[in-house]
Amino acid sequence: MKDVQSEKDHRNIPINKVGIRNLRIPIVVRDQQNKTQPTIADVNMYVNLPHHYRGTHMSRFGEILHRYAHDLSLETLLSILEEMKNRFECEEAHIEIRFPYFLVKSAPVSGAKSYMEYLCSVKASLGERLSLVMEVEVPIHSLCPCSKEISSYGAHNQRGVVRIQAKTSSFVWFEELITIAEKNASAPLFAILKRSDEKYITEKAYMNAKFVEDTARDIALALNRDERILWYQVEVENYESIHNHNAYAAIIKEKDNEN
Amino acid sequence: MKDVQSEKDHRNIPINKVGIRNLRIPIVVRDQQNKTQPTIADVNMYVNLPHHYRGTHMSRFGEILHRYAHDLSLETLLSILEEMKNRFECEEAHIEIRFPYFLVKSAPVSGAKSYMEYLCSVKASLGERLSLVMEVEVPIHSLCPCSKEISSYGAHNQRGVVRIQAKTSSFVWFEELITIAEKNASAPLFAILKRSDEKYITEKAYMNAKFVEDTARDIALALNRDERILWYQVEVENYESIHNHNAYAAIIKEKDNEN
Amino acid sequence: MKDVQSEKDHRNIPINKVGIRNLRIPIVVRDQQNKTQPTIADVNMYVNLPHHYRGTHMSRFGEILHRYAHDLSLETLLSILEEMKNRFECEEAHIEIRFPYFLVKSAPVSGAKSYMEYLCSVKASLGERLSLVMEVEVPIHSLCPCSKEISSYGAHNQRGVVRIQAKTSSFVWFEELITIAEKNASAPLFAILKRSDEKYITEKAYMNAKFVEDTARDIALALNRDERILWYQVEVENYESIHNHNAYAAIIKEKDNEN
Amino acid sequence: MKDVQSEKDHRNIPINKVGIRNLRIPIVVRDQQNKTQPTIADVNMYVNLPHHYRGTHMSRFGEILHRYAHDLSLETLLSILEEMKNRFECEEAHIEIRFPYFLVKSAPVSGAKSYMEYLCSVKASLGERLSLVMEVEVPIHSLCPCSKEISSYGAHNQRGVVRIQAKTSSFVWFEELITIAEKNASAPLFAILKRSDEKYITEKAYMNAKFVEDTARDIALALNRDERILWYQVEVENYESIHNHNAYAAIIKEKDNEN
Repeated sequence: MKDVQSEKDHRNIPINKVGIRNLRIPIVVRDQQNKTQPTIADVNMYVNLPHHYRGTHMSRFGEILHRYAHDLSLETLLSILEEMKNRFECEEAHIEIRFPYFLVKSAPVSGAKSYMEYLCSVKASLGERLSLVMEVEVPIHSLCPCSKEISSYGAHNQRGVVRIQAKTSSFVWFEELITIAEKNASAPLFAILKRSDEKYITEKAYMNAKFVEDTARDIALALNRDERILWYQVEVENYESIHNHNAYAAIIKEKDNEN
Repeated sequence: MKDVQSEKDHRNIPINKVGIRNLRIPIVVRDQQNKTQPTIADVNMYVNLPHHYRGTHMSRFGEILHRYAHDLSLETLLSILEEMKNRFECEEAHIEIRFPYFLVKSAPVSGAKSYMEYLCSVKASLGERLSLVMEVEVPIHSLCPCSKEISSYGAHNQRGVVRIQAKTSSFVWFEELITIAEKNASAPLFAILKRSDEKYITEKAYMNAKFVEDTARDIALALNRDERILWYQVEVENYESIHNHNAYAAIIKEKDNEN
Repeated sequence: MKDVQSEKDHRNIPINKVGIRNLRIPIVVRDQQNKTQPTIADVNMYVNLPHHYRGTHMSRFGEILHRYAHDLSLETLLSILEEMKNRFECEEAHIEIRFPYFLVKSAPVSGAKSYMEYLCSVKASLGERLSLVMEVEVPIHSLCPCSKEISSYGAHNQRGVVRIQAKTSSFVWFEELITIAEKNASAPLFAILKRSDEKYITEKAYMNAKFVEDTARDIALALNRDERILWYQVEVENYESIHNHNAYAAIIKEKDNEN
Repeated sequence: MKDVQSEKDHRNIPINKVGIRNLRIPIVVRDQQNKTQPTIADVNMYVNLPHHYRGTHMSRFGEILHRYAHDLSLETLLSILEEMKNRFECEEAHIEIRFPYFLVKSAPVSGAKSYMEYLCSVKASLGERLSLVMEVEVPIHSLCPCSKEISSYGAHNQRGVVRIQAKTSSFVWFEELITIAEKNASAPLFAILKRSDEKYITEKAYMNAKFVEDTARDIALALNRDERILWYQVEVENYESIHNHNAYAAIIKEKDNEN
């Protein structure tokens, strides 16, 4: 059968990224507590395409991914990227893997155990060297310092989300980034809270009022202290309970020691 | 050209609904304050298909809709359904129109004016007679009575949404259903609140703590009192600020006087 | 601590459904090929609330679910509902569980194996007796018979989705409903297709042109023949490649033998 | 009332962006054919926050926006950004406005008129000088050259989307970018097509087979020729009808003449 993709292209335009998006696949990832965790990923894979080739053989992306999906780690991610570079004969290979990740948490007073979901992702590119960005989305509770200060009683509070992206020089667990996000919110969230826990969380948040600006800065302080982190972006977004739009703060930092 | 859709079908299976979904179109609807309001609709249109026809001529749905979109009202909605019945030679015609609807609201203390968005929809069917369901989705503020009661200070609160569906015997404005939803929440939402407003809303909500169950019941009481409403379903869903899942309550009522 | 939820309510309005929505949790379900499959669920749980109680103890939903999530089956689903009825002292308990479900499929010519994702759900209610609805969403390929007939070459085709809901008298695998959907489309989908497979699928679909009406009717014929199925609704929706809206057909059937 | 936001902050961390997201508001934009077009926007607005301020006065974003929403143009966009810089006493102001935009199109043979929706957005920042990126999302029809070549009859085709982002040196209409996207697809989409049109589009697409790579390159050629465009990113994504994932190509180009 004719190989249309391999035809010579005369438009003289190289393509930065060509590949597949939103491939859904069951994967197994590393878990700090339980060694491994089965989950479900949404995957994008791209390569660069030199100007003289017309097209890409798209089925190869899935073939490579299917071979490694049962054991995804930093090592196998690198193997995927190397295999992409070899198989596509390209200069740059990219993979983006996004998946729900669950931790078992204990309620603060009753100790009731429940699962919390965090959206995690890894974006890795291999050109001359590896570039790797980890990302977590952590749902949080936030209570408004202004509302607390000016009101005779109460203070508006709401669900929010912290998104941390980080480039690192050595291995970091998703659990570590999640902990940083939850510790610096007005309070963390739980799937199961008994009444004693609800009292505890309500009072804790009230004593720990934070703007999106405060949460972003406190997380930035923690990320600044971690020498493994070379670059980060932290975003905090509150689903304001008194508005139908969101409050937002973002801090981006390239540390001097990045090379 | 051959008319494949009009071929005789021998499978002996009538189709309940056949048509188009997610047709996007600019429309103009009636507005209580300003007479008309331009907005953008997401439209579904269906007819029943008798067992002996193979297919439907889908382009006719859009043709009919495009003729009436610039002036949608109860009258033109009925005209659309009648034209569908005539043009498709069918027993039942259905249309579902969903659109954002904006009201200008004044903040409670400063009077600052801003737009609030409400998702509205109309589901109308014409068989032997007309069936019409109006629906509004109203974002609200809710504050938890249990958290308030058991905590030494503060109370968790959050954004929520009230969804009211209603069948009516005579004309009801979307504005009326929106008002019922907002009045029975812990507090309404606004796009612009100055500090004096924020204090007012924070304190009002604290003094007006409501479970999803409370809001649903209070709205049900208001809908029970309105004799134009023959049937309703009210749903209240809170995006709990201490959990990553939602609290929910639903009340469905068919009044005796419906005929 | 005061139990606000258990306060007496004087509004005299019973609530049809009160509970939690969008609780996310890792679960294990039964798999026809591999006995079990780990996946991630989105769960709604409700009970009815008599008019004289003010509120529901929401944490109990999660507690019950967490105890059974590691082994969901028809048996444990019934246990969950019974435990809900006991724990909440209610007349009706409802659970809705929605999850991605993966099957390994072999490409039609090359035999290349890959995962396909299907969205599955179960909606179960226990009042005086059990009501259970299974649902699958199956992505398909559909090719338009009209376009094929009137055009000198080619025919527009597109991705679509088949949604089957079914009430059954005895056990049915999700795999069985998925197979019915895929067999009655113009062609099934695969995550990995080599060029020989692509040729096969392209030609198969061209020889197997189907309107949404055709696919819905052919699936209905298959569901009519299956005596375990007492009631069904089949919906077919094509993401038309020549329009930016979708074509849609729905057939609903209550069989006479349902009791 | 105390102004908590204006408190001095000692963490020594400047915030890159602080503001509001997903504010929904009716707007009026410029329209090449009809001078103006009412639509509905989703708006993000941010400013930078120096390290010594604790917080931002979020209500000011909405106040500024509400004053200009009835007439959005390049001029008023600049006014918004200048007013943000003045009011917040900041170095950088950002606004992102995303809205559906409708064009009336005539079917290619019958001339039947219908509305097509395009998602448009503008991202503008004002620091020392103005940076402005326009973006359009254009739904298209694409037909696979490989499938056509290797199959005895037919060829798989599907809905896709072209996303063009462009920085320009002088005014460009959204209509111009939309035309470039539609002309370089296998075929454009329409909301209403009669049978003669469907035949025309089916045959046109079959004679005009294009990979995502082809469409991206042909659009890049057109954007290269337009001297007003200083930088662009074009993305093409096909909702593959034989897969449940998408094919994707992206070309990014910074022209030499950008200063």
